[in-house]
Amino acid sequence: MPMSPLAVALGDPAGIGPEIVAKAWERREQAGLSSFFAVGDLRSIEAVWSGPVQRITSPEDATGWFDKALPVIQIEDTGPIRPGEPDLAGARCALDSLELAAGLARSPMVGGLVTAPVCKAQLYAIGFTHPGQTEFVAERCGVSAANAVMMLCGPTLRTVPITTHLPLRDVPDAVTVDLIVAKVRATERGLVRNFGIERPRLAMAGFNPHAGENGSFGCEEIDLIAPALAILRAEGIDIVGPLAADTMFHERARAQYDCALCLYHDQALIPLKTLHFDEGVNMTIGLPIVRTAPDHGTAFAIAGRNEAHPGAMISAIALAAEAVRNRLIQG
Amino acid sequence: MPMSPLAVALGDPAGIGPEIVAKAWERREQAGLSSFFAVGDLRSIEAVWSGPVQRITSPEDATGWFDKALPVIQIEDTGPIRPGEPDLAGARCALDSLELAAGLARSPMVGGLVTAPVCKAQLYAIGFTHPGQTEFVAERCGVSAANAVMMLCGPTLRTVPITTHLPLRDVPDAVTVDLIVAKVRATERGLVRNFGIERPRLAMAGFNPHAGENGSFGCEEIDLIAPALAILRAEGIDIVGPLAADTMFHERARAQYDCALCLYHDQALIPLKTLHFDEGVNMTIGLPIVRTAPDHGTAFAIAGRNEAHPGAMISAIALAAEAVRNRLIQG
Repeated sequence: MPMSPLAVALGDPAGIGPEIVAKAWERREQAGLSSFFAVGDLRSIEAVWSGPVQRITSPEDATGWFDKALPVIQIEDTGPIRPGEPDLAGARCALDSLELAAGLARSPMVGGLVTAPVCKAQLYAIGFTHPGQTEFVAERCGVSAANAVMMLCGPTLRTVPITTHLPLRDVPDAVTVDLIVAKVRATERGLVRNFGIERPRLAMAGFNPHAGENGSFGCEEIDLIAPALAILRAEGIDIVGPLAADTMFHERARAQYDCALCLYHDQALIPLKTLHFDEGVNMTIGLPIVRTAPDHGTAFAIAGRNEAHPGAMISAIALAAEAVRNRLIQG
Repeated sequence: MPMSPLAVALGDPAGIGPEIVAKAWERREQAGLSSFFAVGDLRSIEAVWSGPVQRITSPEDATGWFDKALPVIQIEDTGPIRPGEPDLAGARCALDSLELAAGLARSPMVGGLVTAPVCKAQLYAIGFTHPGQTEFVAERCGVSAANAVMMLCGPTLRTVPITTHLPLRDVPDAVTVDLIVAKVRATERGLVRNFGIERPRLAMAGFNPHAGENGSFGCEEIDLIAPALAILRAEGIDIVGPLAADTMFHERARAQYDCALCLYHDQALIPLKTLHFDEGVNMTIGLPIVRTAPDHGTAFAIAGRNEAHPGAMISAIALAAEAVRNRLIQG
């Protein structure tokens, strides 16, 4: 069964999204990328890139053009294009692009969704009420945000933060046995579905130094993590831990598991970005569709200067395609 | 001025300390190690290593023997030697070794102190009341434990955790403006003294995701870190931050500073051990003497099997020698 093209939302037109999507298309052969099309304002690409662009009106036309030009489904009625200068019209364009791309991704004409970075502050200013693109896409897919799991993927490490953007002080009270169980279950299913790993090996981090050393430095391991792991193991899930977080991310340790479950944002993001800063991909697990994004921001400061590194966007597109293929194989 | 030899306390005789000290001596030429002598039970070395050992009674004899044999100052009246089987007699031997080595390190006959791993649980059982070797050595040097700063050193990264072994939940209340200021000042002086860095560039991590994003996810950056940094900058200390902790440890970011200041154990230890698991050195800053240690434990499980990796011990000896040299140059 041939793979349908991926939809790539261009994100904020004043950010580096258009440039890195165009650069990813330029490197489609070296990187072995299967076909995709952009969704956004074609002018935001032309403002920063001189390669061939082809306006299309249906995803079905993308694959035919993909060898010769970057196919784009145009978002109409956008504002002036000024790379590096975000404005409300740009936020509207980004939101329209995301909405259209997410909608298309739910149809069989499109394999999956990749999203370039948006500016949250500008989106909030135009009335966007979701914390980020992940929650928006989840809602459009009829999935509650709580069940949409953020997985960070690099070439040698995958991590899932069980809590994300909240004060670290609030994490111990935000983590519950139910939350850990739900996130680990979703992670395991996601590894099977998106990566084709038959029996995922999971590793759970402790919260405190040395995973608390049997309660010597904190009790979250005993009160929360151990009971959750007992439930998960009883279901047949292969999960070790809680492990001391500082000794679980070096090379030999990483070889022992397919994904590390972490309790807070930086515990998951520090090792991932320390190792794979230019290649980190944010994959949303738990959705009916495949969705990935480069794990960086709009980088307005360098937009329009031809300085943006397309590595993470290329990785996001490649990983989305891999996930689509793995889902097709599994049926 | 010729450098005096380093004193290397062998740590728990049932751990991997004797083996990695002996292996470090074996590799003294490749690693360019200047002379050192061991302090501990000679039999704990002979039980796991067949190379030449020379009993000495004074540090002044170490350098003469160092080319031909591993010099050892013997700790008497120890128990039976059983690699991998810690006991109370071994803990007493480790403590006697530490005490003697630390005492010798305060004399001009000895350049500095390196300590192999001990078993804290066994030490506590024989009445040791310090949290670890660092605090013991600080007290022997007449320095309060609060002013002895733990710095983790790897080939491409140095980090200092401002708090160490306490529950992560308690960190926000344990951190004060005064504590940050004191630890940063000590860190800066240590970088000048031990590493010969004239004007150290420091980077301070935030506590919350994205360093709190201006208070969106937590206020420790605003309430604690920013006021501390203002005081430090007014003193002329070069310190940036608070930085988002997840984006400050990749290769290009690390090139911008000499040491990262972190608020909690894992924030400092995760990046260090992710990158430099086999080479991490724990250096105590703020003491009148130089003191380093390999940043790993006793590894009883592999003791006596000739499987222990001496990398971190070699790095600890090399770094101590470098620090001694830098101090001699500065006078």
